[in-house]
Amino acid sequence: MANSPTAANSIGMRLSLNNVPGTFARFTTAIGDAGGNLAGTSDFEVKGRLVFRTVHVHARDDAHSDALVAVVEGLDGVDLIDWWDRTFAMHEGGKIEIEPGVQVVDVEDLAMAYTPGVARVCLAIDDDVDLARRYTIKKNTVAIVTDATAVLGLGQISPEAALPVMEGKALLFKSFGGVDAFPICLDTTNASQVIETVQHIAPAFGGINLEDIAAPNAMIVEEALRERLSIPVFHDDQHGTAIVVLAGLINALKVVGKSAADCRVVISGIGAAGSAIGTMLVDAGFGEVVGVDRNGALHRALDGLNLVHQRFASVTNPECRHGSLVDVLAGADVFVGVSQPNLLTAADVSTMAADPIVFAMANPEPEIRPEEIEGLAGVVATGRSDFPNQINNVLAFPGIFRGALDCGASTVNEEMKLAAARAIAGIISDDEVAADFIIPSPFDRRVAAAVAEAVAFAARASGVARD
Amino acid sequence: MANSPTAANSIGMRLSLNNVPGTFARFTTAIGDAGGNLAGTSDFEVKGRLVFRTVHVHARDDAHSDALVAVVEGLDGVDLIDWWDRTFAMHEGGKIEIEPGVQVVDVEDLAMAYTPGVARVCLAIDDDVDLARRYTIKKNTVAIVTDATAVLGLGQISPEAALPVMEGKALLFKSFGGVDAFPICLDTTNASQVIETVQHIAPAFGGINLEDIAAPNAMIVEEALRERLSIPVFHDDQHGTAIVVLAGLINALKVVGKSAADCRVVISGIGAAGSAIGTMLVDAGFGEVVGVDRNGALHRALDGLNLVHQRFASVTNPECRHGSLVDVLAGADVFVGVSQPNLLTAADVSTMAADPIVFAMANPEPEIRPEEIEGLAGVVATGRSDFPNQINNVLAFPGIFRGALDCGASTVNEEMKLAAARAIAGIISDDEVAADFIIPSPFDRRVAAAVAEAVAFAARASGVARD
Repeated sequence: MANSPTAANSIGMRLSLNNVPGTFARFTTAIGDAGGNLAGTSDFEVKGRLVFRTVHVHARDDAHSDALVAVVEGLDGVDLIDWWDRTFAMHEGGKIEIEPGVQVVDVEDLAMAYTPGVARVCLAIDDDVDLARRYTIKKNTVAIVTDATAVLGLGQISPEAALPVMEGKALLFKSFGGVDAFPICLDTTNASQVIETVQHIAPAFGGINLEDIAAPNAMIVEEALRERLSIPVFHDDQHGTAIVVLAGLINALKVVGKSAADCRVVISGIGAAGSAIGTMLVDAGFGEVVGVDRNGALHRALDGLNLVHQRFASVTNPECRHGSLVDVLAGADVFVGVSQPNLLTAADVSTMAADPIVFAMANPEPEIRPEEIEGLAGVVATGRSDFPNQINNVLAFPGIFRGALDCGASTVNEEMKLAAARAIAGIISDDEVAADFIIPSPFDRRVAAAVAEAVAFAARASGVARD
Repeated sequence: MANSPTAANSIGMRLSLNNVPGTFARFTTAIGDAGGNLAGTSDFEVKGRLVFRTVHVHARDDAHSDALVAVVEGLDGVDLIDWWDRTFAMHEGGKIEIEPGVQVVDVEDLAMAYTPGVARVCLAIDDDVDLARRYTIKKNTVAIVTDATAVLGLGQISPEAALPVMEGKALLFKSFGGVDAFPICLDTTNASQVIETVQHIAPAFGGINLEDIAAPNAMIVEEALRERLSIPVFHDDQHGTAIVVLAGLINALKVVGKSAADCRVVISGIGAAGSAIGTMLVDAGFGEVVGVDRNGALHRALDGLNLVHQRFASVTNPECRHGSLVDVLAGADVFVGVSQPNLLTAADVSTMAADPIVFAMANPEPEIRPEEIEGLAGVVATGRSDFPNQINNVLAFPGIFRGALDCGASTVNEEMKLAAARAIAGIISDDEVAADFIIPSPFDRRVAAAVAEAVAFAARASGVARD
């Protein structure tokens, strides 16, 4: 199935057009005929017989961008002055900056911000390390750490190549949660070295967000750092995803009128995300959770499981169901996919219990496309912004760290994660909740504040808050 | 000798005063009598019979601040509403912030800055790592790395306690050089671990500024990282200091009418800074450089020298002069002190050659106070802002990294350092240069730009620039 044009492949074009009625219409028609989406126009100018416009056109991919440019170059009465890739342009020079929080305009400022005055602040912190959370960036600063082994759907790439993602995450941390976040892209994929490196750089940070680290290292690294550090360590691909999935399921259950305790959930893909989702759903009281990986359903009686699968199997699938995905899906209430495109058919979904809930989150193509099970499924969610019910981690991580930093939490525990999921779900009232509206938009500004408050409350209630 | 009041111990006071002529005058007299310096007043307001003012008062130290507060509390007609430590207030919440360089206000922005659009940028960089300097923060971002073993004059403190200094440095990097700098405070002092940690986090950075690392680890770490990384690695305490000292000496020689080749220089204190100064002065063509440490003059014939001293001795003291500081100072043209307070007497300086140049840079108290050798020395410089000729690293590091980043330099070599020193010296014209004006102010905005330009030119000329 061909991609639709999206902003991911968006080109900007600076045009001059003959100032004759119909010229721009010919341009828009040509773009439309060539499969492009005109997404916006700006910078309109008229000079004599010429009209100037900048237009934004979405394409399907790079080849389609080139084709659209060729179409415009062939148009009579239209001159393509310049064109550029808007995504690359947005990343030019990087997406975050380090800015002064105080001004240094004279000798007095310098003597207070730097030597000799700063020595007094250093000595105070050397005497009482807790003061670092008052007089330094530590209180509000998070490291976004990756070893670049599982970046987006790209797998392992170079640490430099992972940097645009980590910068993007830092951008979202600040834009949505007011958290100062800095990217740490490691040139090692050795778990021990990752652990030691993060431990060594931890003093300046109030939290560690692990990102795009492949299983099982993701779990090994997270577990070791949680033990060694007294600041929150949170692998977003695991727990962020699990929190948003749970938030969506809380509301989806309302739509189909089922209770968690009565639900059987099948999770496809037991890597970093899938295993965290399973554990969280068990903690949240779902009746039965069954994980399925390449070799079929996971259960405790299987031999030769890796560490992640062993742990997962030990807390799930109490009835030791076995067989293929299709086998265990029959009669299930919920499907959660974090696996691969086009894994399911409508026929498979039709074997599920009444009003099945399908979260098909493989990227960029889901396990089954929503239109294939329209009318069949009770609720459908994906990871994509072009369908309803997008399961997007940005709903969770800014508010979780905001809340954890605000209360000086020493960790992110299960209580805080559950509170975050409930807070996200709670943004949608019972009146509003519907099959195509179980999860708020990433741009609903109430989300991060609600999550932060719930997380800080849960941290205090569970005794891990210092402030 | 008691400290003078400075901005390092500055308190803010919010006052209400009876609106009667002479009340504020009584306040200022009382502060002056108690040894405080009134540094400014602001936020003047009148409400009926009361006048409100905020005043800034410099004190000598914490006890003096308390004494000044007590004096004000005892004044008739003056009510101290509130008071605060201005230095600590400036550090509250940290001194730098991480800000979005692009806006994310809608779904389209999100699709370009983050998934799915960012994947295209990642793949492009994975294919050609040089593109990281175009499409990420790498091009303009420097890590300020410390192991907190030699912070200011405080010696070893905790990494958290070193953070205010590194943040201050980051502030100066941005304010003076437009460089994005982020503090990395390490919880290890083991040289191998420092080296490995920096190597592991290097991909996101375009340069490494090593800071406040004690000798000999400073040299070991710098040398190893220079070999392993293809970005500039620069230990500011060594090379930044050496560059500014050389800049000062270039102009000091003009004042006293001597040439470098004819000068004998004695350096007191051969740690990180002293050894770098010595090497740089040899490279810059000074006739003879002799280093003196606790045990006297260093020369190649001595046994049992540590690595730093061995190397230093191998390039200095060609005549194998030996003896105490006082012994080798006799007849010398230049004294450079990076050692300890009150080491020299006027009588010692009087044994030097005519018009001796004395750079007494021990902090906070120099090796000899300038007033003791007024009329005796040809030129005197210190590390302090309250005397003329302050040798301040902020004259060097912002421009050096600005220049190195601008041209994509793979290192900072000797040519670049010499160019930086000459550029700093060149800010002062031959007409302006004088015994009390050999080095520009840190607030002379021409400095960083001139240094950057000279450094980039030297990098290109010496073949280490990529852009």
